[in-house]
Amino acid sequence: MNIPRSSFPRIVIIGGGFAGISLAKKLKNKNVQVVLLDKHNYHTFQPLLYQVATGGLEAGSIAYPIRKVVQEYQDFYFRLANVKEIDTVHQKVLADIGDLHYDYLVIATGSKTNYFGNKDIENYSMAMKTIPQSLNIRSLILENFEQATLTNDIAERDALMNFVIVGGGPTGVELAGALAEMKKAILPKDYPDLDIRKMGIHLVQGSDRLLDAMSPKSSESAEKFLHSLGVSIWKNVRVTNYDGRTVTTGSDLTFETATVIWAAGVKGAAINGIQAEALIPRADRFKVNEYNQVLGYDNIFAVGDVASMISEKYPYGHPMMAQPAIQQGNLLAENLVKKIKNKPMKAFEYNDKGSMATIGRNKAVVDLPKMHFHGVFAWFVWMFVHLFSLIGFKNKAVVLMNWVYNYIKFDREGRLIIRPYKKKNIQSFTTDEI
Amino acid sequence: MNIPRSSFPRIVIIGGGFAGISLAKKLKNKNVQVVLLDKHNYHTFQPLLYQVATGGLEAGSIAYPIRKVVQEYQDFYFRLANVKEIDTVHQKVLADIGDLHYDYLVIATGSKTNYFGNKDIENYSMAMKTIPQSLNIRSLILENFEQATLTNDIAERDALMNFVIVGGGPTGVELAGALAEMKKAILPKDYPDLDIRKMGIHLVQGSDRLLDAMSPKSSESAEKFLHSLGVSIWKNVRVTNYDGRTVTTGSDLTFETATVIWAAGVKGAAINGIQAEALIPRADRFKVNEYNQVLGYDNIFAVGDVASMISEKYPYGHPMMAQPAIQQGNLLAENLVKKIKNKPMKAFEYNDKGSMATIGRNKAVVDLPKMHFHGVFAWFVWMFVHLFSLIGFKNKAVVLMNWVYNYIKFDREGRLIIRPYKKKNIQSFTTDEI
Repeated sequence: MNIPRSSFPRIVIIGGGFAGISLAKKLKNKNVQVVLLDKHNYHTFQPLLYQVATGGLEAGSIAYPIRKVVQEYQDFYFRLANVKEIDTVHQKVLADIGDLHYDYLVIATGSKTNYFGNKDIENYSMAMKTIPQSLNIRSLILENFEQATLTNDIAERDALMNFVIVGGGPTGVELAGALAEMKKAILPKDYPDLDIRKMGIHLVQGSDRLLDAMSPKSSESAEKFLHSLGVSIWKNVRVTNYDGRTVTTGSDLTFETATVIWAAGVKGAAINGIQAEALIPRADRFKVNEYNQVLGYDNIFAVGDVASMISEKYPYGHPMMAQPAIQQGNLLAENLVKKIKNKPMKAFEYNDKGSMATIGRNKAVVDLPKMHFHGVFAWFVWMFVHLFSLIGFKNKAVVLMNWVYNYIKFDREGRLIIRPYKKKNIQSFTTDEI
Repeated sequence: MNIPRSSFPRIVIIGGGFAGISLAKKLKNKNVQVVLLDKHNYHTFQPLLYQVATGGLEAGSIAYPIRKVVQEYQDFYFRLANVKEIDTVHQKVLADIGDLHYDYLVIATGSKTNYFGNKDIENYSMAMKTIPQSLNIRSLILENFEQATLTNDIAERDALMNFVIVGGGPTGVELAGALAEMKKAILPKDYPDLDIRKMGIHLVQGSDRLLDAMSPKSSESAEKFLHSLGVSIWKNVRVTNYDGRTVTTGSDLTFETATVIWAAGVKGAAINGIQAEALIPRADRFKVNEYNQVLGYDNIFAVGDVASMISEKYPYGHPMMAQPAIQQGNLLAENLVKKIKNKPMKAFEYNDKGSMATIGRNKAVVDLPKMHFHGVFAWFVWMFVHLFSLIGFKNKAVVLMNWVYNYIKFDREGRLIIRPYKKKNIQSFTTDEI
């Protein structure tokens, strides 16, 4: 890789998500050379992906060019790259665009969808971790309804209008709410020749409550809200397979559907080359100490979803969410500067600011460390926090304008099939057949 | 196709561009059944495609869901379809989604890029007629600069930073201006390790002036504006080939470049099944009479770019632009209603409202029927007319906000590679090789 040698030590950061970007920002002009690698040239504001998937926001409103973030930083390099492996012996990152020596390495690769080894589900269901994936979901939803207008086969049409969301965490809950709002306000007008009442929105949760990382009160409210929106909630149901047409579960329950959105689990996006002892199997997260140092290495760090910092309070590491990632990124910047100056580093302590989820129009649930609330006020809090967290004034302004417009007009104008989603080779749902 | 029979005569419109949409709007609740077919589910505001290509606007801001336009019209159907052929004997449209009987057929398929039979140019150059194509150009521009940071081969880097736009009409001129603004204000900040002064923007025109459909004064001003922005203008140059690396011309002049944008010609997007006598060869436009009836047919009409209505004033038909398309669409709605009632139709007369082009920041040229002006005022007129012409309040508001933001901040935040553009198999520019 074409990075000039500097008199400063070189920190290589892999990943421009919440952890990587907050780290990069704090390393601005700190007498270090920083090389930031990412496979996209933009930072994604993941909490709003579901609104891109359901046409409420354009992709550009929740993406921010990474080069714009770092463009005025000294001795700072961004490279668009897929990292293949770490060579810890020679202190090198091996990527598709070449090798790069590091003095300090920070792995901030985040997480990816966990299919728990099921290849069928991986092939036939939709994930919603990236902007292209969200746009694929948007295209598929709209393509389904377009196809439903074409068929006289009732079972086929029902399957096209049936949506199964697996996973009752914030992603599944928010997506189900947004789909339900589409069903109520938009689809009946757009498809007057379809009976939209027949559209099914099924939210399938393995455990006994939705949002099971939040308070029981939030779960209860979320279920009530979704129920009132017409979402079918299936608790204690474990999905066992999906062949592109039928979802099978641990019991006799099955769903006939053209669309499964898999939000049932994530795992760390670990990379190769780190010693096996440092990796938590299945979770694919790297064990880190209180300074985010990866087990067994002095100059390799991991932050965010891919890092698991085990403590008494968090025996499985911190939740895989934006907040721990941002806080770890911020502290690690300080600690790297300290370490370079041979000063002692500061131990990380997670400041849990709470969590929240929105469920359609006017409704949200918010858990703060000492209180819970839900309803309209929670919804305003949710909007304010998300708006405020977006990078860039223009994105904030455009998102706010879209929200106000969508709210007043009961509308989402992003129902555009810009890139058709090419379904895998499933006979019964190919357009050609109809 | 699954369209119920109605007691009203059925009008089938192929294409939801300027002509098709204005026709559809005027046919609202007119005691006819209307079926509108398009291969996209949105209407594209083509005059602003170049701003999507250069990251100034998001795709969603210049696209509008067709179903939203027609959602409250009675006995009105939209279908996402690729039309393959017309069976004029049985009065049927043959499409990928099935056949459809028509009582009246309106061909509003617009135009497509004309490569004048050159397959190499078609394969290796970029067109800018649709939103996906514009997004491809955006991705390619950014990918080129990302790749330029990776190579030490100077010829390679120069070719990656060299842009050749073929065709000096409004599309080429506006795109060249927008690229020049990127070169000035954005790229030097985003790519501090590249010498952006080396970026070349070449605008190649076959005739002896740019904007040769406009007034000589406008040509002159446009050339002056582009010149001051650092665009290299090549007049009287005919491009003969592009092999993915080298552009050859009618003379010794060649360009080494990774990117050719082909804006040198359009032709009608004619469809099969219409008798040969009605088609103008090479131009691929259908000959229509003053009522937009296709030569030799009583109930088949063509409007917009695909129609050529020859008159004394317009011996080659009307210019292939939005205005004639909109005006023809509007009048044809009236005429179809008249025809159904056996009343005489009204002859079309083109009301030339003038034409305009913008060239970067603060500059535009405007030709009105009786006057010409250019500069800042022309630029305001350009913006006002384009804003006003966009469908939908939200698109207008979002575009305005983006323009104000981009203007004040000298910025375009849409520099996002959402879908990487996969280059054709050109050895020297594949990422893997570097």
